[in-house]
Amino acid sequence: MADIQNGDSCSSSPLELFERVTAQGEKVRSLKAGKASTEEIDAAVKLLLSLKVTYKTATGQDYKAGSPPVDFSPVSNNGPITTQDEDFVDPWTVQTSNAKGVDYDKLIVRFGSSKIDKELINRIERVTGKTPHHFLRRGIFFSHRDMNQILDAYENKKPFYLYTGRGPSSEAMHVGHLIPFIFTKWLQEIFNVPLVIQLTDDEKYLWKDLTIERAYEYAIENAKDIIACGFDINKTFIFSDLDYLGMSSGYYKNVVKVQKHVTFNQVKGIFGFTDSDCIGKISFPAIQAAPSFSSSFPQIFKDKKDIQCLIPCAIDQDPYFRMTRDVAPRIGYLKPALLHSVFFPALQGAQTKMSASDPNTSIFLTDTPKQIKTKINKHAFSGGKDTIEEHRKYGGNCEVDVSYMYLTFFLEDDDKLEQMKQAYTSGALLTGELKKVLIETLQPLIAAHQQRRKQITDEMVKQFMTPRKLAFDF
Amino acid sequence: MADIQNGDSCSSSPLELFERVTAQGEKVRSLKAGKASTEEIDAAVKLLLSLKVTYKTATGQDYKAGSPPVDFSPVSNNGPITTQDEDFVDPWTVQTSNAKGVDYDKLIVRFGSSKIDKELINRIERVTGKTPHHFLRRGIFFSHRDMNQILDAYENKKPFYLYTGRGPSSEAMHVGHLIPFIFTKWLQEIFNVPLVIQLTDDEKYLWKDLTIERAYEYAIENAKDIIACGFDINKTFIFSDLDYLGMSSGYYKNVVKVQKHVTFNQVKGIFGFTDSDCIGKISFPAIQAAPSFSSSFPQIFKDKKDIQCLIPCAIDQDPYFRMTRDVAPRIGYLKPALLHSVFFPALQGAQTKMSASDPNTSIFLTDTPKQIKTKINKHAFSGGKDTIEEHRKYGGNCEVDVSYMYLTFFLEDDDKLEQMKQAYTSGALLTGELKKVLIETLQPLIAAHQQRRKQITDEMVKQFMTPRKLAFDF
Repeated sequence: MADIQNGDSCSSSPLELFERVTAQGEKVRSLKAGKASTEEIDAAVKLLLSLKVTYKTATGQDYKAGSPPVDFSPVSNNGPITTQDEDFVDPWTVQTSNAKGVDYDKLIVRFGSSKIDKELINRIERVTGKTPHHFLRRGIFFSHRDMNQILDAYENKKPFYLYTGRGPSSEAMHVGHLIPFIFTKWLQEIFNVPLVIQLTDDEKYLWKDLTIERAYEYAIENAKDIIACGFDINKTFIFSDLDYLGMSSGYYKNVVKVQKHVTFNQVKGIFGFTDSDCIGKISFPAIQAAPSFSSSFPQIFKDKKDIQCLIPCAIDQDPYFRMTRDVAPRIGYLKPALLHSVFFPALQGAQTKMSASDPNTSIFLTDTPKQIKTKINKHAFSGGKDTIEEHRKYGGNCEVDVSYMYLTFFLEDDDKLEQMKQAYTSGALLTGELKKVLIETLQPLIAAHQQRRKQITDEMVKQFMTPRKLAFDF
Repeated sequence: MADIQNGDSCSSSPLELFERVTAQGEKVRSLKAGKASTEEIDAAVKLLLSLKVTYKTATGQDYKAGSPPVDFSPVSNNGPITTQDEDFVDPWTVQTSNAKGVDYDKLIVRFGSSKIDKELINRIERVTGKTPHHFLRRGIFFSHRDMNQILDAYENKKPFYLYTGRGPSSEAMHVGHLIPFIFTKWLQEIFNVPLVIQLTDDEKYLWKDLTIERAYEYAIENAKDIIACGFDINKTFIFSDLDYLGMSSGYYKNVVKVQKHVTFNQVKGIFGFTDSDCIGKISFPAIQAAPSFSSSFPQIFKDKKDIQCLIPCAIDQDPYFRMTRDVAPRIGYLKPALLHSVFFPALQGAQTKMSASDPNTSIFLTDTPKQIKTKINKHAFSGGKDTIEEHRKYGGNCEVDVSYMYLTFFLEDDDKLEQMKQAYTSGALLTGELKKVLIETLQPLIAAHQQRRKQITDEMVKQFMTPRKLAFDF
């Protein structure tokens, strides 16, 4: 198979290969847009990944949408070509064929960001005097851009602010969606800074088969789950794009500034847009970029244009902010800093991102204790062995075991987690027992979330979403 | 020359020709963007027009940006190919090599609009009981879309509203810029309907070498000249895009709706955008489209989404509204109706549109009586003969005489205008005498405008530009 594939790549010119990759990319997008079956999409994505590897082998370059090969040197073939080495990550697709998940070290190199290393974690602890969040300690937030600038600012008592967000594609949020918010809440508490949370209802309207009204409803419902994470109402502004663009004297101006400094060629290269995409999608990246600049929020920062922004987000959002950081100095603004998280795995395994549209791929924030138990017992991919005897003898594999992965996110006790790992790896702990620990961790956590969410009134949502001065003077 | 050109077209494939036209179009745009000299731009535009003719000869199809030739049949050559037959009209360029100006009958066919004929003018008179404006009687507003629908609505006492606008590219407006406003004011008076006036300061920021702040200043200055035309403050809302987008709960939502339903391929075809254009330009057409829908102005129309819009504008703006009319039914809105005007000629002749950046191409609203006199005497292109003897013998040519053209716009008295025409054509009236009539028509008109403009206070501008209910109940 590998040989055939390689022979194939030799018989095609690099440009032909480029066009085959582009066409396959188009096909993946149209399958997704057309709501094709998961199998169909997966097969198309697999072929896409494989074509990309072939392309790289033939040209020595990574495929980059919109940039046909110019100057290439064939790479010698040192072994069979597999698609296992290549992950696909953009804001709409995260795909890997590795059960351990995406290779994040490679992603750091590919994206040109920096690893959150022990030294940086130590500095955060030193500067804030607080124990670093377990998301930092465990490499869940693993990559950053310019975090040291933010710590410099903090040490020099210079203000900065936090910006994160969510695309409200449905009413239902799952536990994975909480990751950036749990971490952002912690950042807000240790640094005591303003926070803005963007709900990209306009994006969801543009990308999905949704009405404007429905997208906005989802934004409001999602806002309730976000507020239930415990954000401080005096320090947090939540906004729907559809709403806030029509209420802010600064936001649209910054959107236009970004739009003037980014060409179609650039968004083609960064996001893979094509000529058949609507002009709303093509210009949307500016809408996600603009909240990185403090002048988009005159009600919070007055006329201050130089308050730096720190963005905690999943790494798939990085393309937006690479673009933003490229534009910022050209329009007289500071580049936002970033903290990137890994992806939260689906119950079925780390090969894909969770899907809000398939209830069995994840634990939803609305799930009952019973549903949580059933889903984990039935669907959580196990790294254990097939029989108790084998498991006891050879032990389980934490690297691919979804229940264990989930515990790294939600079991705060480091010692207990380490115990689990050792016991599972040695075979002392069975899959069912590990799942039980996860079930007993998630059930009270989700129940508490539901309890808090119940207390969120429409009035509170309105207050969080009203443009206003926060508890900071600028 | 013609033969060489034709031979040339035969040796190139249609696709090669297509690419040459595209490349030349790019060149024209980049010369303009780079502020090249008028000569350089004119030469490049001439070559572009000539290439388009060659393209049409070879393929039998009009060149359409973004649409390479697919199915073409060569056209036999019936005579020398000249560029005189082809005018170039888009929102940024109006170019003709004919001293009489653009061939408007051809434009109607090309754009697919309808001629404003005697029957329609009579119906307007019958329905409103008012004498049709001389802009209608003299074919200055010469083309329309769905004007009969508007008259039906008026007869049935169904409401509609007017929408026009201006791109504030500089502080200085010239008399030509007044044409749509003079006519719109008349329409507002005879129909007694709400009017919204868009100042596209965002567009000027995107297209020109301007800061956001400067573009907005121009918008405010231009608003003063527009208000000085005598609009009723209780029936007129003037808005800057940069401002109003951040103040309206309806505008951005409609912008996004339009943006979802127009692809890059479409704006490429309509406006000639390329991959190197910024995403701001690419998405801008939606910003000009959205005010065609009443729900962009909830403060005026409440929740009414079905108030039809009538847009008086120069015909070069039609591409925006062809796009708007195409999108409207797909997002549940009514198509706007249109009334199109001819272009106001430059003093140097009807071959080009006036330029706000060259003071000698036009009469500015700030010109003194002396400047008006000097400019007309020195620069107004004459259709008269070289010597008095020849002029008396052969007469002057009103069709190319700029002073006469200007009188058709500004001399309201039909009888006097007809007298001028006959006397000038017969040779009884000399160029100097005709110019004197124009000078004496424009001097008091401009002086009166300046007088009215002086009385426009910042407070009045603010009031016109405040989103508010107008003197109509919806």
